[in-house]
Amino acid sequence: MKRALTLIAAFMLLGSIAEIQAQQNLWQAERLVSPEIHDDNSVTIRLYAPNAEKVTLITDFTDNGNAMPLSMTRNDKGVWEYRSEVLPSELYYYWFNVDGIDHVNDPANSYVMRDVGSQMNYFIVPGERGDLYAAQEVPHGTMSKVWAQVADGRERRMTIYTPAGYEEGKGRYPVLYLLHGMGGDEDAWSATGRVAEIMDNLIATGKAEPMIVVMTNGCTKHVAAPGLSHEGMWRPYMSGSMDGTFEAMFPSIVEWVDDHYRTIAKKHSRAIAGLSMGGFHSMQISKEYPSMFDYVGLFSAAIFRGDESVAIYNDLEAKLTRQFDKAPALYWIAIGEEDFLYEDNVRYRGLLDKAGYDYIYRESTGGHIWRNWRIYLAEYAQLIFK
Amino acid sequence: MKRALTLIAAFMLLGSIAEIQAQQNLWQAERLVSPEIHDDNSVTIRLYAPNAEKVTLITDFTDNGNAMPLSMTRNDKGVWEYRSEVLPSELYYYWFNVDGIDHVNDPANSYVMRDVGSQMNYFIVPGERGDLYAAQEVPHGTMSKVWAQVADGRERRMTIYTPAGYEEGKGRYPVLYLLHGMGGDEDAWSATGRVAEIMDNLIATGKAEPMIVVMTNGCTKHVAAPGLSHEGMWRPYMSGSMDGTFEAMFPSIVEWVDDHYRTIAKKHSRAIAGLSMGGFHSMQISKEYPSMFDYVGLFSAAIFRGDESVAIYNDLEAKLTRQFDKAPALYWIAIGEEDFLYEDNVRYRGLLDKAGYDYIYRESTGGHIWRNWRIYLAEYAQLIFK
Repeated sequence: MKRALTLIAAFMLLGSIAEIQAQQNLWQAERLVSPEIHDDNSVTIRLYAPNAEKVTLITDFTDNGNAMPLSMTRNDKGVWEYRSEVLPSELYYYWFNVDGIDHVNDPANSYVMRDVGSQMNYFIVPGERGDLYAAQEVPHGTMSKVWAQVADGRERRMTIYTPAGYEEGKGRYPVLYLLHGMGGDEDAWSATGRVAEIMDNLIATGKAEPMIVVMTNGCTKHVAAPGLSHEGMWRPYMSGSMDGTFEAMFPSIVEWVDDHYRTIAKKHSRAIAGLSMGGFHSMQISKEYPSMFDYVGLFSAAIFRGDESVAIYNDLEAKLTRQFDKAPALYWIAIGEEDFLYEDNVRYRGLLDKAGYDYIYRESTGGHIWRNWRIYLAEYAQLIFK
Repeated sequence: MKRALTLIAAFMLLGSIAEIQAQQNLWQAERLVSPEIHDDNSVTIRLYAPNAEKVTLITDFTDNGNAMPLSMTRNDKGVWEYRSEVLPSELYYYWFNVDGIDHVNDPANSYVMRDVGSQMNYFIVPGERGDLYAAQEVPHGTMSKVWAQVADGRERRMTIYTPAGYEEGKGRYPVLYLLHGMGGDEDAWSATGRVAEIMDNLIATGKAEPMIVVMTNGCTKHVAAPGLSHEGMWRPYMSGSMDGTFEAMFPSIVEWVDDHYRTIAKKHSRAIAGLSMGGFHSMQISKEYPSMFDYVGLFSAAIFRGDESVAIYNDLEAKLTRQFDKAPALYWIAIGEEDFLYEDNVRYRGLLDKAGYDYIYRESTGGHIWRNWRIYLAEYAQLIFK
């Protein structure tokens, strides 16, 4: 037992290299807690920055989920603090600006998610919505990172959610194809979109049907998320895939999924949805292959015609007619009232209205933000395959 | 086309919220590049910190992979720089200390890995070793995050690598159980240990046998990595599992894996290995269940007797005799000459030597560091199932 204690003491002293560094700082003996979620659901964020002149908290606490800079206050121990009002249940993100360094993560918070090229700390305020985004003690699905040989001849990485019971059973499942936005990748929905948690919780409570969710990489310039491809160092940015190549390869993705998973390989058991550029892709793909998807979801979609010199973007109206002649079971359009793509969506709905096509429109508060996309996913997932 | 360009311009302006923030800073129009890997394999790291008094780079460039503080130099644009010597091919990590803020990540580098509670930026210098840790254009296996119902009655998260061809085929595979250190979790080996990349590359070149790799969560206090359990906010730390509970539940983990994967469920096709506390677990588990594993790897193992009031830690010598009577095909011990557990390993090898048990000993340079654990994994993986 003495040796056990000695060893544990040695670990406490040594720990990981990061911890050594932390412990060289005497102040850290007090173990800074950040964020601290108080009993009343207000939250205190802290950063030890003893020599800083000005520390700003960038967060989506306020203003309908837009990122806002909030001034922090230094206490006499060199710790900068900000205590929020009582917060509604939600998943919130934040980072710091320290004396002009524009993006400093919280070293006391191990909860991190990536949006395009940037790491954001996050926390979940419990309650109805926050609980939907947190793992619960319910049966869990599996989240797999797979590589699929698709139509462009290269292996591309994808994320695939299979619901609880898939591995044990023999049944076949419907499939939701869920597409990210510009600069995103196959990790976007699974990390920042909280897909495993949302789907596990909705399925466990009977609110959504058990389904497979396929999260593609639709930035065709790269085959995988940063650090996970053979392409060396690069920084994700707005380098997009709105040139028709992703839409053109989509049937080969569906074919690969139907070959490798126990899917119900029929239109009535396939849904597609995407955010921003992924909404554009979902609109284009669903009308290009009208026998493929019975459920279409456009989340804050970048809806426009596309470059008409690309075949796949030609004849939009005629292709929509072909799609709606076959009456999709659900065509669902959602956007926030502050979204910079709002007017484009108004115009697109006008086009659908003029032609008399059925769709459901869901308008939320807020702008072009992940908060909305998680909400839309949770709502859309409850409408499909029923 | 005009609308397409307008939209793309809107994206460029808006982008993600993180990018907006970056772009509010005019200087960022120049898009800071960090790290920059030069043609000669020297590297420049940069941080824009216009008002900082002192910026230190913490990195493992030097000193056999231990974390070292290096002084950075400010240029006239407020950018702090450090240019390394020519670096051997390797995966390197780093972060910054800015005026006493002890852990600032590089906002220009999206390549991040987590060690226990801390995020570290990383980059790979190409060449023989670095290429082994990077995805290559070879057939890729699948990395899955699964939840397993094991002996403690709770679902616990695990990471499972299945080699290229597993999903398409019907064959059965040997299994390597790979265990993390204290404060780690089921994400440690897959992220910081680069297991998918190492295994894909070794298998593709015929250096390792195709195998399943199971990466457990051996910190029994939590059922999953930070942010992925139902346990709310917590910070991973040295809260360990050296109380026998993990070892006791291990047969139920093996049973779950054999039930859910096409394994060869025999001793000759099972290996176990772990780093630090995971080496302790591997030693304890392999001797407790001597018919379970034919290959044992102790990487920088925390080798000691354990608390003898716990049944599983009793009668070490007798249980080792029982294990070595059945002659494991490989008992492999590796440690760095600077490791703080070096003397404990000397004592343990003394015990094995005295009893006349066969093992292979591999001594490396360096200390208790991930660099060594990746090296040990790559070597060990080439020795097992042959």
